[in-house]
Amino acid sequence: MAQPAPDLQPSAAHRPGGWLAAYWRPEVAPLSPRVQAALAAGPRPAELFLSSAQAPALMEDGYGPVETGWTWTRGQGVRVNCLTPMPGVTPAMWDWWFAWHGADSDRYKLWHPRAHLAVGWADGGDARGGYVGRTSRVVEYLGASRMRFAISFEPPAAFGLDPALLARKGQVAVCARAGLDGSGFTSGAMIHQLRPTADGCEMRSRFWMLGDDLRLGGLRRPLTRLIPPRPQEAEALLVHCAEEMGHLAGILPALYAEFGADQ
Amino acid sequence: MAQPAPDLQPSAAHRPGGWLAAYWRPEVAPLSPRVQAALAAGPRPAELFLSSAQAPALMEDGYGPVETGWTWTRGQGVRVNCLTPMPGVTPAMWDWWFAWHGADSDRYKLWHPRAHLAVGWADGGDARGGYVGRTSRVVEYLGASRMRFAISFEPPAAFGLDPALLARKGQVAVCARAGLDGSGFTSGAMIHQLRPTADGCEMRSRFWMLGDDLRLGGLRRPLTRLIPPRPQEAEALLVHCAEEMGHLAGILPALYAEFGADQ
Repeated sequence: MAQPAPDLQPSAAHRPGGWLAAYWRPEVAPLSPRVQAALAAGPRPAELFLSSAQAPALMEDGYGPVETGWTWTRGQGVRVNCLTPMPGVTPAMWDWWFAWHGADSDRYKLWHPRAHLAVGWADGGDARGGYVGRTSRVVEYLGASRMRFAISFEPPAAFGLDPALLARKGQVAVCARAGLDGSGFTSGAMIHQLRPTADGCEMRSRFWMLGDDLRLGGLRRPLTRLIPPRPQEAEALLVHCAEEMGHLAGILPALYAEFGADQ
Repeated sequence: MAQPAPDLQPSAAHRPGGWLAAYWRPEVAPLSPRVQAALAAGPRPAELFLSSAQAPALMEDGYGPVETGWTWTRGQGVRVNCLTPMPGVTPAMWDWWFAWHGADSDRYKLWHPRAHLAVGWADGGDARGGYVGRTSRVVEYLGASRMRFAISFEPPAAFGLDPALLARKGQVAVCARAGLDGSGFTSGAMIHQLRPTADGCEMRSRFWMLGDDLRLGGLRRPLTRLIPPRPQEAEALLVHCAEEMGHLAGILPALYAEFGADQ
């Protein structure tokens, strides 16, 4: 199927208008002390990070040894973890958000007012199709670099997460594999796990880049050592994730209250 | 002499049991603002750092121009300084610790619960031999990478520090040369100087890596430019030192009170 490029002319200066203007916050808050400390600390011992094949361990209660930080592995993989507290937010809001934002670059820009430029579903559809099983094409900055990614959302079971257990715990896990748009490669995988807390929820983000998660097309055998990891990319990913997730968490309850019935 | 590998299977997930469990703190505190600022600042002017040959200047009172920070030199050397305040700790506790921990990986893990994996004396002995003149073999993470080092402790006089002056000032200086275990190279030198303060003591750590401190076997002539320095290694060393020294300082008084009579 032909995959049209998102039709918005991507521009970091663009601002959402109309109904969304009320939710536009052009400033991104400074990184939290937790994230700043993780960046200062640099790479952490590789064995303290799960591989994507070990993702089912995310269903254990409590926290892992590195909830916010990054590493690289002997297999040339980069792993980035990020914990974002979200008072007043529910896991269901994120489940709604991932479908709702994906057809509208203005919505996408609310999520990260500086780094996000354009978004569109590869199938050309709108939010009625949900997000699982669909591919989101995005134009966004990672650090200084404008990138085009294709993000293919998968059901949690594809990563070994039991949907019944997720439901019983009141959790949502947004799971995807992603790569450079049009490259034919998937260069990484990600899970955003939403867990209820006393005052809302928390997001545990896990990114697995390159290494065992670098694949060509439908091939199952990873390319592993083809591309060497760069620490700057791990740092940029941690910064981007902390910023976008913390930023949207601040407006998501109000967005959900106004638009949550939309599909 | 054959040097057996430490017999513990190294694992960052291992936890000390038995008597030591009471001292196990799995969390490492975030880096202090002082250390975070030093990392953010990046490399400092090389001439503000002593060479290992200039170590006797450590006996001067007061502080050097860069107590916490790193640099590299024209001679391809990396230098890392780290100051760690230690209220409630005495220099004698560290003198005890360096001998006491070295035969027991569980003790070693107390020092840095995430990055330390295994330790053993190359001579196969226990704490009764002290540490000066012995070689400690360690398995530990520096940043993301698991390393095996051989750390050979030397008397302070080997670095030009006058033992009588140290004693008169109530100081202890833990001095060593180190290299990759089994490589035949010593790739660096270090001094941890403990100075009494009004509320305990402070540790001035000095690392000299590569450059003039890169040597093969017993050769006195340095290899100097053989291996280029990498900033990531300086940063990882500063992070590691700040974490392990600050972490142990929090439990060392209690450990010393319980086990300090042991040898």
